[in-house]
Amino acid sequence: MLKNVKCAKCVKCGKEYPATPDVTTCECGGILDIVYDYDYIKSRLTKEKLAARKDLTMWRYRELLPIEEETENTPLRVGNTPLYEEPRLAEMLGLGHLYVKDDGLNPTSSLKDRASAMAVAKAKEAGKDIIACSSTGNAASSLAGNAAAAGMKTYIFVPSRAPKGKVAQLLTFGATVVSVQGNYEETFELSSKAIDRWGWYNRNAAVNPYLSEGKKTVSLEICEQLQWKAPDYIAVAVGDGCTIGGVWKGLKDLYAIGFIDKLPRLISCQAEGCCPLNRAIEEKAPWHPMEENTLADSIAVGVPRNPDKALQAIEESHGLVVNVSDAEIMAAQKLLGSVCGLFGEPAGVTGTAGVKKLCEMGVLGKDDTVVTMISGNGLKDVENAIKAAGAPISCPNDMESLLKAFAANNVDAK
Amino acid sequence: MLKNVKCAKCVKCGKEYPATPDVTTCECGGILDIVYDYDYIKSRLTKEKLAARKDLTMWRYRELLPIEEETENTPLRVGNTPLYEEPRLAEMLGLGHLYVKDDGLNPTSSLKDRASAMAVAKAKEAGKDIIACSSTGNAASSLAGNAAAAGMKTYIFVPSRAPKGKVAQLLTFGATVVSVQGNYEETFELSSKAIDRWGWYNRNAAVNPYLSEGKKTVSLEICEQLQWKAPDYIAVAVGDGCTIGGVWKGLKDLYAIGFIDKLPRLISCQAEGCCPLNRAIEEKAPWHPMEENTLADSIAVGVPRNPDKALQAIEESHGLVVNVSDAEIMAAQKLLGSVCGLFGEPAGVTGTAGVKKLCEMGVLGKDDTVVTMISGNGLKDVENAIKAAGAPISCPNDMESLLKAFAANNVDAK
Repeated sequence: MLKNVKCAKCVKCGKEYPATPDVTTCECGGILDIVYDYDYIKSRLTKEKLAARKDLTMWRYRELLPIEEETENTPLRVGNTPLYEEPRLAEMLGLGHLYVKDDGLNPTSSLKDRASAMAVAKAKEAGKDIIACSSTGNAASSLAGNAAAAGMKTYIFVPSRAPKGKVAQLLTFGATVVSVQGNYEETFELSSKAIDRWGWYNRNAAVNPYLSEGKKTVSLEICEQLQWKAPDYIAVAVGDGCTIGGVWKGLKDLYAIGFIDKLPRLISCQAEGCCPLNRAIEEKAPWHPMEENTLADSIAVGVPRNPDKALQAIEESHGLVVNVSDAEIMAAQKLLGSVCGLFGEPAGVTGTAGVKKLCEMGVLGKDDTVVTMISGNGLKDVENAIKAAGAPISCPNDMESLLKAFAANNVDAK
Repeated sequence: MLKNVKCAKCVKCGKEYPATPDVTTCECGGILDIVYDYDYIKSRLTKEKLAARKDLTMWRYRELLPIEEETENTPLRVGNTPLYEEPRLAEMLGLGHLYVKDDGLNPTSSLKDRASAMAVAKAKEAGKDIIACSSTGNAASSLAGNAAAAGMKTYIFVPSRAPKGKVAQLLTFGATVVSVQGNYEETFELSSKAIDRWGWYNRNAAVNPYLSEGKKTVSLEICEQLQWKAPDYIAVAVGDGCTIGGVWKGLKDLYAIGFIDKLPRLISCQAEGCCPLNRAIEEKAPWHPMEENTLADSIAVGVPRNPDKALQAIEESHGLVVNVSDAEIMAAQKLLGSVCGLFGEPAGVTGTAGVKKLCEMGVLGKDDTVVTMISGNGLKDVENAIKAAGAPISCPNDMESLLKAFAANNVDAK
């Protein structure tokens, strides 16, 4: 029994379920949300207690997480990623203060490690030693890595079009990878049937309510790293909706237990070519599917699987929405690289691209403190980085040619 | 004036030089080694003082580093990478205790960040705001990233055969990248001439004696993470020789100030197809160049640029040498991935490959505590990971086909 959790409650119809380790979705089809007993948590956790804790992983926030007291930390060191203040970039953009959270420095190089570590912990509680999911991206590779470190097996279902590099990561981590001859929907269906048949633990983020509880640790960390002074805005790249839902949950938790005294507004950043959730907010209408026209593969989600938590997060936080073009995403990648020395994958820099655009539109400015998150390492997608990066200066191997090449390229080598 | 440093001393002829920020090589051509005043350091640094320090970056070891007291920390969070104990892998190999240090979790995803952060700090001390080097690999990308974060410019010279992915990283970090029409030797020569002409700060590791002082922080961290109980062995993949030289320097420092009470033996791991330093040790003869026949590009160094520090380190530590095949490197990559959830580039797992081989040979066993280091993230070289990883199970999208596919591949999906 989780002492700090009351129940798992459907975000659609409100029906409540006991928060067992393998609870999935509501009978109405809605995803569940974990409901905490904040009075209990307040009686157990203080800022001072937290500050004295040696554990710097995401598990330092145990009282705010839906795990048993005796459940062990998962082996890989997830969390405690750096939050950099970036005064030079803030000035270039015309912002008051800008912080960038580099979550690409997690063990398998993405924010998804936070959710996958949670899946591993909950699978152990459920007495399962096999975990499955269908995905081609960071969710799958983080699950395979975190489970391998814990001595657990994984079954990963990928559509046959899955990029080789990501499949290589999965196989390196020892996952059993099933390449399904079909599209993503068919892959998901086959994984569901297999999970039912063999009783594996389910790490599909639209099904398992504990995953956004793992992801929320990113906002717990941001606020602790800012000495509990919440920023005005947190910008999040949005695809499926699970991450922005998790970010918001963490902020609400901290507000409920009195660790922060205001709630930041969220900025939902999507790609122009695939922005079903932002479009729903802008049109004040239900969301409907869109095509997936963006190079930012991790947020190229035309049919988001967690729309309810995402839309609630944006609305409750009085959030902003902004869509950016692929060119703007590439420009943000170059900007974070050249000004801050940070390298994010396209989806990973989309939050920063959105903030830049809102600065140019005059929506954000000198009075604002903004946090953006890099959700995945740029090395995850070298092909697109090449497109964004430009070309080197080609030159024969003598000094005279170098001087000419510098002159031709307007390089002032002083 | 550095209060903790006596001088910079040639490792070849013993000539001493003042440790100015831009000191390079000895007039005899030998590389310099930084000589510390250990009595001064002992009077300033205790284990307790260190334990109380909040700074978890490599700069927490300031008293042991050749920088001015007032020199600021460099901006990217270099160091404090995880040291994992791996009991399951130890048992598989027949080792007493095995620890793996994942240095691929540094900001630009390699151990080289430690040297590049040092270069940035020393360039600032030298009053330079442009740093240059010639390299296509982790040294270059870490320099470009760390310098960008510090608001400094970089000029990187790469041979025209440089892999696109690495060039993309450099350009993303805003480096001026000169692609030289020639081989690596010609590229190095042109970079030297340009550095002389424009007076840039020089980050070529065979020239700048401060770089291995940055790298040594990896062994300072390992020993602190083991509560100052030094392991019996530390295994290091060896190419140029700078890393193993740095690792040894850190150990000697700790021993000199009484923080550890024994010196580990080093294990120098090279690729069979390119092992000039190990061959010299085995043959008790001077080293001579070799071809570069290995997929582990970061240690494919036929003409090592820091042979003296490397050979000294192996000899002084009563070290072991072991050469591994590309197949053994790929097997180690898969093993670290599937058992530990850790993903290293080929050179990054070569230390573990060497340890595995020494276990199989009966050289290492139940009584030994060994540390291996992953020096670079596997995402740095996805192409080779694909070769090592094997293939997924291809399957039509229905349950009957899945059952057949599992049977055909001996998958027991219980």
